[in-house]
Amino acid sequence: MEKHKLDEIVQLGHGGGGIMQDHLIHFITDRILIKKIGNGIGVDSYDDGATIPLENSDEEIVITADGHTVEPLFFPGGDLGSLSVAGTVNDLLMMGARPLAITSTIFIEEGTEFRLLDKIIKSFNQTAKQANVAIIAGDTKVLPKGALKDVIIATTGIGIKPKNRRIFDANCKPGSKIILTGSIGDHGAALIAQRQNFALETPLESDERCLIDLLPIIETTSGIQAMKDPTRGGLAAALNEWAHKSNVSIWIEQNKIPVKREVQSIADILGLEPLEIANEGKAILCVEAEYAEEVLTKLQQITSGRDAVLIGEVKAEKPDMVIMETPLGGKRIVEKPMGELIPRIC
Amino acid sequence: MEKHKLDEIVQLGHGGGGIMQDHLIHFITDRILIKKIGNGIGVDSYDDGATIPLENSDEEIVITADGHTVEPLFFPGGDLGSLSVAGTVNDLLMMGARPLAITSTIFIEEGTEFRLLDKIIKSFNQTAKQANVAIIAGDTKVLPKGALKDVIIATTGIGIKPKNRRIFDANCKPGSKIILTGSIGDHGAALIAQRQNFALETPLESDERCLIDLLPIIETTSGIQAMKDPTRGGLAAALNEWAHKSNVSIWIEQNKIPVKREVQSIADILGLEPLEIANEGKAILCVEAEYAEEVLTKLQQITSGRDAVLIGEVKAEKPDMVIMETPLGGKRIVEKPMGELIPRIC
Repeated sequence: MEKHKLDEIVQLGHGGGGIMQDHLIHFITDRILIKKIGNGIGVDSYDDGATIPLENSDEEIVITADGHTVEPLFFPGGDLGSLSVAGTVNDLLMMGARPLAITSTIFIEEGTEFRLLDKIIKSFNQTAKQANVAIIAGDTKVLPKGALKDVIIATTGIGIKPKNRRIFDANCKPGSKIILTGSIGDHGAALIAQRQNFALETPLESDERCLIDLLPIIETTSGIQAMKDPTRGGLAAALNEWAHKSNVSIWIEQNKIPVKREVQSIADILGLEPLEIANEGKAILCVEAEYAEEVLTKLQQITSGRDAVLIGEVKAEKPDMVIMETPLGGKRIVEKPMGELIPRIC
Repeated sequence: MEKHKLDEIVQLGHGGGGIMQDHLIHFITDRILIKKIGNGIGVDSYDDGATIPLENSDEEIVITADGHTVEPLFFPGGDLGSLSVAGTVNDLLMMGARPLAITSTIFIEEGTEFRLLDKIIKSFNQTAKQANVAIIAGDTKVLPKGALKDVIIATTGIGIKPKNRRIFDANCKPGSKIILTGSIGDHGAALIAQRQNFALETPLESDERCLIDLLPIIETTSGIQAMKDPTRGGLAAALNEWAHKSNVSIWIEQNKIPVKREVQSIADILGLEPLEIANEGKAILCVEAEYAEEVLTKLQQITSGRDAVLIGEVKAEKPDMVIMETPLGGKRIVEKPMGELIPRIC
């Protein structure tokens, strides 16, 4: 799939988790020849996670790659340090893995205060401690003033999972239920509110969160077919990816999806769609129907899933579509977002 | 070790592979609590490599983290793409590991031409193919114009090694010999020459090189105690790190160390020390005396080691020092460089 002529340029939307990003990723993947290792999951569409099977073992190593750039570096509810670890840990969990370790490469702009670095690293460390992941290696690069704004971090997550625990995007089966762990759009909206200096009645915080308390549920519950954290591109991008990769349709009910009043207000003012706004502490789960109630109840007993709700189901008809039933009984197609107008959010 | 007051700022020298970088790394490490996993090697001084032992196996996983920023993106002898893979593969080899896989996170400035990305990715892929490593996962982030200059890449290398193959910096023993695989300073000097537009009689190329042909020697030869690729901070930084971590002295002979005439000229003009200039395709090996000749001969039979020479030896006296004998019979201490005056070289 050659979507880009060579004399086109990369736009912000290419980083937004939507269709434009798919094109960028395909552009890269098309140029990569060796993509898999052993029988593991490897680059299919330059995915952010892969598995490496261990010989003579019923387990496999899970590896994820993630870049983190956020502005401002410190925002209500989180910062670059905690975000980097939480994002990495969440990626591992979404693949059904137990997070073990993390490596990080920190790119620093010349002139950055050590005070700022101090806060970021401490926050990075605290989140790692909370998730019980070891920070096992790292690299630092300093870029000349102007060649980089502030600090960005690239992480790799290393986890382990039983080979027979199969949780992946292409695994959503007709009849299964879709569970969402809480309200959507909080992260993106909180960042916009801070950047634009919106005067909100109640302060809006990012939902940034390390979802490590999901691990016992992942490890002890049957019927989980897929899990995903709807970050860039929001719920709309995440559900569309499932529908596409699993070749199914996903039907959701609008009035089941929690959206905070502040998030809706910001979305309305700026003409954004909450379904497309990034989250950093939410997960969606696709669960076999007979286990859905059990998973929902378990989720509601942990902090990360306190507000979990069942929002829809998977069907075989109309494959590769996400359809939302509105409160008035209408139906509308939830498109995969094109790009993302809010840069540096994750 | 608290070397930095919080109101100090990060300078370019903090990224240069020398003493200032040590301070930056300690600043980070001091703030990290969880550092190891199982019995593996983990963060000791925020090292760029770590091991994860596999249960019920005589092998262990080796993980390395590396950030790559180079200017210009394309230089005589290499580019950002090939450099990223070669650097990662070389890091794995230096730990005695067989490289298996690589993940990458690409940070792209808004406005970058797809043409440029095309060249970088193709080069990235070609080097991976040459080293027979799988590109198993990746992430892309697009930063707004001005928040990043061009493109930078962060990689993680994944390799495997027998638990009983112990090749590491703190393992240099008195009596052992030091072997260098070829001339020094080519990479840094080539970049400077291109940036400053020096008119050289003969074109100077970077030595950037994936050292994968060292693997059979690593796998079949006894007596290799330590290996290192002298990148940032050059040979001076690498040898000083060995002397420090192994608590030994390293004695080298100046007239054994190959320095190309062009490199020496550039160093002379700019007042640089070739020992401190970065390499991207060289290795140093610390080898037990009785195996040194065998290793040297084997090295000279492969492309990466064609010009390999024995440059010195390890002694117990004067620990933590690197001493160079000059052609006239004098001795001088080779200090660890303070910082690096050439940013964005690797």
